[in-house]
Amino acid sequence: MIIKCALCQLSVSSNKRKNLKKAEKMIRESAANNADIIILPEIFNAPYDIKLFSKYAEKYPGISSDMLSCLSRELHTYIIGGSICEKDENNLFNTSYSFDRNGNLIGKHRKLHLFDVNIKDKLIFKESSVISPGTTVTVFDTEYCRIGLAICYDIRFPELIRKMSLKNAKIIIAPAAFNMITGPAHWEITARARAIDNQIFFIAASSARNTKSSYVSYGHSIIIDPWGNIIAKADEKERILYGSIDLNLIDEVRQSLPLIKHLKPDLYR
Amino acid sequence: MIIKCALCQLSVSSNKRKNLKKAEKMIRESAANNADIIILPEIFNAPYDIKLFSKYAEKYPGISSDMLSCLSRELHTYIIGGSICEKDENNLFNTSYSFDRNGNLIGKHRKLHLFDVNIKDKLIFKESSVISPGTTVTVFDTEYCRIGLAICYDIRFPELIRKMSLKNAKIIIAPAAFNMITGPAHWEITARARAIDNQIFFIAASSARNTKSSYVSYGHSIIIDPWGNIIAKADEKERILYGSIDLNLIDEVRQSLPLIKHLKPDLYR
Repeated sequence: MIIKCALCQLSVSSNKRKNLKKAEKMIRESAANNADIIILPEIFNAPYDIKLFSKYAEKYPGISSDMLSCLSRELHTYIIGGSICEKDENNLFNTSYSFDRNGNLIGKHRKLHLFDVNIKDKLIFKESSVISPGTTVTVFDTEYCRIGLAICYDIRFPELIRKMSLKNAKIIIAPAAFNMITGPAHWEITARARAIDNQIFFIAASSARNTKSSYVSYGHSIIIDPWGNIIAKADEKERILYGSIDLNLIDEVRQSLPLIKHLKPDLYR
Repeated sequence: MIIKCALCQLSVSSNKRKNLKKAEKMIRESAANNADIIILPEIFNAPYDIKLFSKYAEKYPGISSDMLSCLSRELHTYIIGGSICEKDENNLFNTSYSFDRNGNLIGKHRKLHLFDVNIKDKLIFKESSVISPGTTVTVFDTEYCRIGLAICYDIRFPELIRKMSLKNAKIIIAPAAFNMITGPAHWEITARARAIDNQIFFIAASSARNTKSSYVSYGHSIIIDPWGNIIAKADEKERILYGSIDLNLIDEVRQSLPLIKHLKPDLYR
């Protein structure tokens, strides 16, 4: 069973309408190229900027989630809608909505681990000053397999990825936006290690690098197979990255190197 | 506080006496070059071959552990004695002995996860057919910091490395011998990911590549800092690899990117 994935590495501007238009265009192009699963990056409709989250936030359903739902139904594709800033009562969340081929919401993930960092003289970001964390691990079923969802900083925590893979997620998708400091240092290694350790497909979808933003995204969207090989990798520019996944590879790798079978949970407690 | 580490990437033969002589020579050279911690690879006194483990096995104390203890006292250095095949009653273990500067045994680790793999047409190895697994996680204290010990396949399991780092191990040392299939694919990524995720120093000490062995070691001993940078890396040949560790870097990295503080254990259960 081969699944064709398309990662829309779009360059995000401060104009929400334009961001949505661009996402729509890239989704349509992906579908025209026969993508089964189309994936957007983290906060694809707004700048990744804590001062602006509230301004761009949407209740569910809202203009962005409606657009994704309609497109998935019209184009008959899965859409993993990156993430947007969600407003729920008085709280904001960094939330990902996923839709099946009929426009039904099949997964909703609120970013669990918020990006609060202070890299001396280089980068200060305190996502938790405006965003509330999610409280649940997110896996959902598709016609192919179970998929796990993590948003950006969530992938820093191997425990979360393990939990999803033990819940039988075969593909873990991470809409993300690493930056110019953590990106070169940690992006590819982290993605590959999660795939290798869990013997799953790991997909990390970034926005393109926009050097005019206050937060400059690293780009380099990537698709990794369960052996850790890179199926496809983008550079920093705007583009659609395609990659085909053969789920049979998971069993093959797990039979060769039975990591999951060799786990010793009692030892790790 | 700078700690100088020396990894003795020795080429192991089938002659135990020669292996021990070579280990001694490399340990003496490391000490002459002012190494504080001298590290040997997995099964440094015998071929890594399940058919031979029993023949080379030693009770504790034995000729190999005695040699390491005496050298650490004479040279006034820490010695992390890679591993040897240990015989205890009717069981064999893949065991690592560590000695302080006075020749005292400060750490004993029995490999927890045994290397049972079957990579089609390439590599079959069933360590558990002759070796029994250890049952405890190993950390021990030195004048510098707490050290965690894992042997080879143990490092495949992020839970174990996390457990040791949560027990406050600041350096995790892995005597190891990846092979020509898993080495190129997984060795460096795994080592770097463990360092990055736990923000610790990660040291993986391999034997040199001996293409005459039944099991051909990958080599490429490596020392990684808590940001994931490579401090020192060997190729496949016999050599001593030196690298200096500045423990202050751990706090610096953990203040920049507070991964440990951001863990959500309740979520992962």
